[in-house]
Amino acid sequence: MFKAIVSASTLRDALDSVSVLVDECKIRLNEDELAIRAVDPANVGMVDLALDAAAFESYEADGGVIGVNLSRLEDIAGMANAGDLVHLELDEETRKLHIRIDGLSYTLALIDPDSIRQEPDIPDLDLPATIVLEGNQLDRGIKAADMVSDHIALRVDEDEEAFFIEAEGDTDDVDLELGRDDLIDLAAGPANSLFSLDYLKDMNKAIPGDAEVTVELGEEFPVKLHYEIAEGMGQVTYMLAPRIQSD
Amino acid sequence: MFKAIVSASTLRDALDSVSVLVDECKIRLNEDELAIRAVDPANVGMVDLALDAAAFESYEADGGVIGVNLSRLEDIAGMANAGDLVHLELDEETRKLHIRIDGLSYTLALIDPDSIRQEPDIPDLDLPATIVLEGNQLDRGIKAADMVSDHIALRVDEDEEAFFIEAEGDTDDVDLELGRDDLIDLAAGPANSLFSLDYLKDMNKAIPGDAEVTVELGEEFPVKLHYEIAEGMGQVTYMLAPRIQSD
Amino acid sequence: MFKAIVSASTLRDALDSVSVLVDECKIRLNEDELAIRAVDPANVGMVDLALDAAAFESYEADGGVIGVNLSRLEDIAGMANAGDLVHLELDEETRKLHIRIDGLSYTLALIDPDSIRQEPDIPDLDLPATIVLEGNQLDRGIKAADMVSDHIALRVDEDEEAFFIEAEGDTDDVDLELGRDDLIDLAAGPANSLFSLDYLKDMNKAIPGDAEVTVELGEEFPVKLHYEIAEGMGQVTYMLAPRIQSD
Repeated sequence: MFKAIVSASTLRDALDSVSVLVDECKIRLNEDELAIRAVDPANVGMVDLALDAAAFESYEADGGVIGVNLSRLEDIAGMANAGDLVHLELDEETRKLHIRIDGLSYTLALIDPDSIRQEPDIPDLDLPATIVLEGNQLDRGIKAADMVSDHIALRVDEDEEAFFIEAEGDTDDVDLELGRDDLIDLAAGPANSLFSLDYLKDMNKAIPGDAEVTVELGEEFPVKLHYEIAEGMGQVTYMLAPRIQSD
Repeated sequence: MFKAIVSASTLRDALDSVSVLVDECKIRLNEDELAIRAVDPANVGMVDLALDAAAFESYEADGGVIGVNLSRLEDIAGMANAGDLVHLELDEETRKLHIRIDGLSYTLALIDPDSIRQEPDIPDLDLPATIVLEGNQLDRGIKAADMVSDHIALRVDEDEEAFFIEAEGDTDDVDLELGRDDLIDLAAGPANSLFSLDYLKDMNKAIPGDAEVTVELGEEFPVKLHYEIAEGMGQVTYMLAPRIQSD
Repeated sequence: MFKAIVSASTLRDALDSVSVLVDECKIRLNEDELAIRAVDPANVGMVDLALDAAAFESYEADGGVIGVNLSRLEDIAGMANAGDLVHLELDEETRKLHIRIDGLSYTLALIDPDSIRQEPDIPDLDLPATIVLEGNQLDRGIKAADMVSDHIALRVDEDEEAFFIEAEGDTDDVDLELGRDDLIDLAAGPANSLFSLDYLKDMNKAIPGDAEVTVELGEEFPVKLHYEIAEGMGQVTYMLAPRIQSD
């Protein structure tokens, strides 16, 4: 059983955070939250989304799992105005999701969850450095890195108490330094890892410019990015595997 | 003889309503109105446009016919700002149309009207149902249908007193229900016909979102769409042939 | 030695004026101004840019020459907001230009100036007619001409005291007449020349709509276009060779 009403903007923010990594996903319709975990086909980037029951106007679910085509669901959500409410109701028998937006009804055929790639276990890493910054700052560093390279280094300088976003190209280099004053918070620690820029660009697409993003970082370890949606009633976590640094 | 002055926005609204169906057309320069009738090459969609002499700042004509390349004429009208006046004058001898917009002169070579496909007779059908709705509502139904199919059904439910825009895809369905409260007016009657979405999308492009659109509908009959331009001093009628409904 | 601070918008206006013609250029870092002269590969269009030391927040230079990739430099300047200051500093030893914008550092590898096509001598022509008009007016004439032809004629009618922008297509003609009242200034003289529209379109891209453009024109002679940037503390001159008029 699943029956819920949610604002179009909340639904879109939730779907966008997952669709930047995968085309199809399983949605867990838990009693207290809607949850999605997914990993990209190359096993490099993961997303973990939880949207609390409180983020919905109304929410009833009993723990089922459905498989959906994300871009199809995003198209439908895109038919709504930002303030519109989206009504969702699962028909258990036909395995179709009925979506209703102000007079408009859409019947979405679901995908067999068993045909969708398995949900990843997101490891519980204890990473030594934590940086909290605005989505806009991260966006600026990623755009700058993209001018010269397809890799990006994230680094904390413990002495300078600063976070660095860096990229080395064949001829040109780029380096964004964010000191304590530029950041919302910084817990410095030994941290320096290299990542594929393509994945970070995709994740960045979903992160709102004014979101408070928490970055957990180590030395040649995966990075974790957290931010909230739905006024704090939804949480998104990305995890991205590092690339080996060469000299 | 033809000599007229018209606001750029009125001229553009008039040309757009025809150019969504055909590239070239005959323009009848009647004494009391400028009139265009055209049918697309596949004989599926027709348009009938009348722009009253009163829609012009000044208008003098004596019943001639000219042939024009519509996209060319739209490009020229596109050079004007919305408030600008467009001066049109036919040179009978050279068969060229002189167009003047605030210092800019354009000499447009006309097309021999005999080389343009014949104007259609638009049949005077007595269709059993009439729906009056906002252009925006029609647009919403067409966009939704376009997500799942290349056909669209328009239907009136006499018992529910509602107008339905529906589409059936291979896996998904879409259905926009507009009740009496959502419509400007409804004269219910037996009406249910299927249409090619491509044509309706093209016609919809020309219909302003805030226009009052009158839809005349029957059972497996053509649909007629009427709306006004130029503050009521111009009338556009589209007619679209039905597709055979299969089961 | 070169060290300067300049507003992002001034830097962008300066770079844009050159990049519409060439991809790479030499920049002369003179004591009192930054100067660029360049000619397109076909030797048809030239640009001469001078940005006075006063156009910078601070400026120190001793006459060196550097070679740059313009689109790369424009991308970097594009990372700044309009009000941001761009810090430029040349590292003589590594031959790299360090660019800093609010925490973001970019190290740009320079190009050997000797590998860049030679700077043109811009001839000191004494052209008989001078027209001063708004960038917007020029833009309007160029857009209109582009509808019918890939050539454009610029002409002064001494009797009518008017400037004409004209184009003749295979079937259609276009003609923008700008009288004394439409122009900022006019010194009439015998002037009528034909130009390649592609080049003039490129130059026009860089000219702000509200710029005061001075056009110097003769009979089958090159045209010179001047306008100011950086609130009068920068000067751009374009010169474009004529096409032979055929009958």
